[in-house]
Amino acid sequence: VTTSTGKVIVNQTITIDGYSAGLNQSEERPFGDDGGDGWGNSLHSWMFDAGEENRAEVAQINAASAVIMGRNMFGPVRGDWDRQWNGWWGEDPPFHAPVFVLTHHARDPQPMDGGTTYYFITEGIEAALAQARAAAGDGDISIHGGATTINQYLAASLVDELRLHIVPFTLGAGVRVFEGVPPLNLEQVAVRGASSVMHVTYRVRS
Amino acid sequence: VTTSTGKVIVNQTITIDGYSAGLNQSEERPFGDDGGDGWGNSLHSWMFDAGEENRAEVAQINAASAVIMGRNMFGPVRGDWDRQWNGWWGEDPPFHAPVFVLTHHARDPQPMDGGTTYYFITEGIEAALAQARAAAGDGDISIHGGATTINQYLAASLVDELRLHIVPFTLGAGVRVFEGVPPLNLEQVAVRGASSVMHVTYRVRS
Repeated sequence: VTTSTGKVIVNQTITIDGYSAGLNQSEERPFGDDGGDGWGNSLHSWMFDAGEENRAEVAQINAASAVIMGRNMFGPVRGDWDRQWNGWWGEDPPFHAPVFVLTHHARDPQPMDGGTTYYFITEGIEAALAQARAAAGDGDISIHGGATTINQYLAASLVDELRLHIVPFTLGAGVRVFEGVPPLNLEQVAVRGASSVMHVTYRVRS
Repeated sequence: VTTSTGKVIVNQTITIDGYSAGLNQSEERPFGDDGGDGWGNSLHSWMFDAGEENRAEVAQINAASAVIMGRNMFGPVRGDWDRQWNGWWGEDPPFHAPVFVLTHHARDPQPMDGGTTYYFITEGIEAALAQARAAAGDGDISIHGGATTINQYLAASLVDELRLHIVPFTLGAGVRVFEGVPPLNLEQVAVRGASSVMHVTYRVRS
């Protein structure tokens, strides 16, 4: 892990039992059974319903100079790219930066408005990180998720900083951050409780 | 869940990946492989090495009018009580209250110094709670752990308040809080970050 250039930061919203998505993910409900239907509270309400209170954390997420995400976070298309899926975020995505999507299926780069371009990386997590590093210059790289992608980067010791946004419910099933990752020794850098989320930043010790 | 009398409070120290004990628990190392050997940081260092900074949380844990714990938290003896094991906490335990130990093996009550008496309950979690309630009067009851016991009380909707003390490392294996518990809707009541632990209090919504 080098920090002479920007940091590699994981940003992830998780339940208090560690899940970043529920079961039954679909195009209509990208986070699956995430509590939103029954409880008026879902994984990402803190970003939207309480965006003002959590402005600093949302801004930090969107400040990355390059973004890496897994294909399941990018969209619901599986297998070949048999339809023109350009992400969940519309024509002007909030990234304003190159986004490297991990996939087993090659596809040409997809430019969007506002400075976002989606690049499709078929050579694995280290190749994606190298390209993100080249694109980010001195800026930070954000591993945006999902948990499967994050766990791969954590297991490979490629993460400098872990920013978790922990919401006050449990899901009991789904995709769990840290699952299958060897033990990590972290330094707790900052903790902030907002009204229905707590934000914690850890530095990953080498 | 009734709150006309004292509350039923769960207190538990967990890693950021949800474990309250590591693998290989033994008499010498009651929390098993809990990071203490290699990292100079273990599950409960916040209570001992940083006790002053966390005085309020430690005091709260020890303020319960009655305590419930599982047999594995009480000690390493399995099966019949073939030796006079009186807990990990010496002759004058910090509870100063009746402690109800869940077990499948009957044993006479064991009085200790300072107001602690260990009672051995063979009729299950609801019986233990009823006896703790009778003993506690208007005071609070603390479910002290371990995770297996806590998970049974959570699954049975018998907990009013959940106080987690989250330490900055992962274990990746062991006994995990919330495992097998149906989804819980919580109200985040308080968050405090200390130097190497964060304390969060949740109210369990009915």
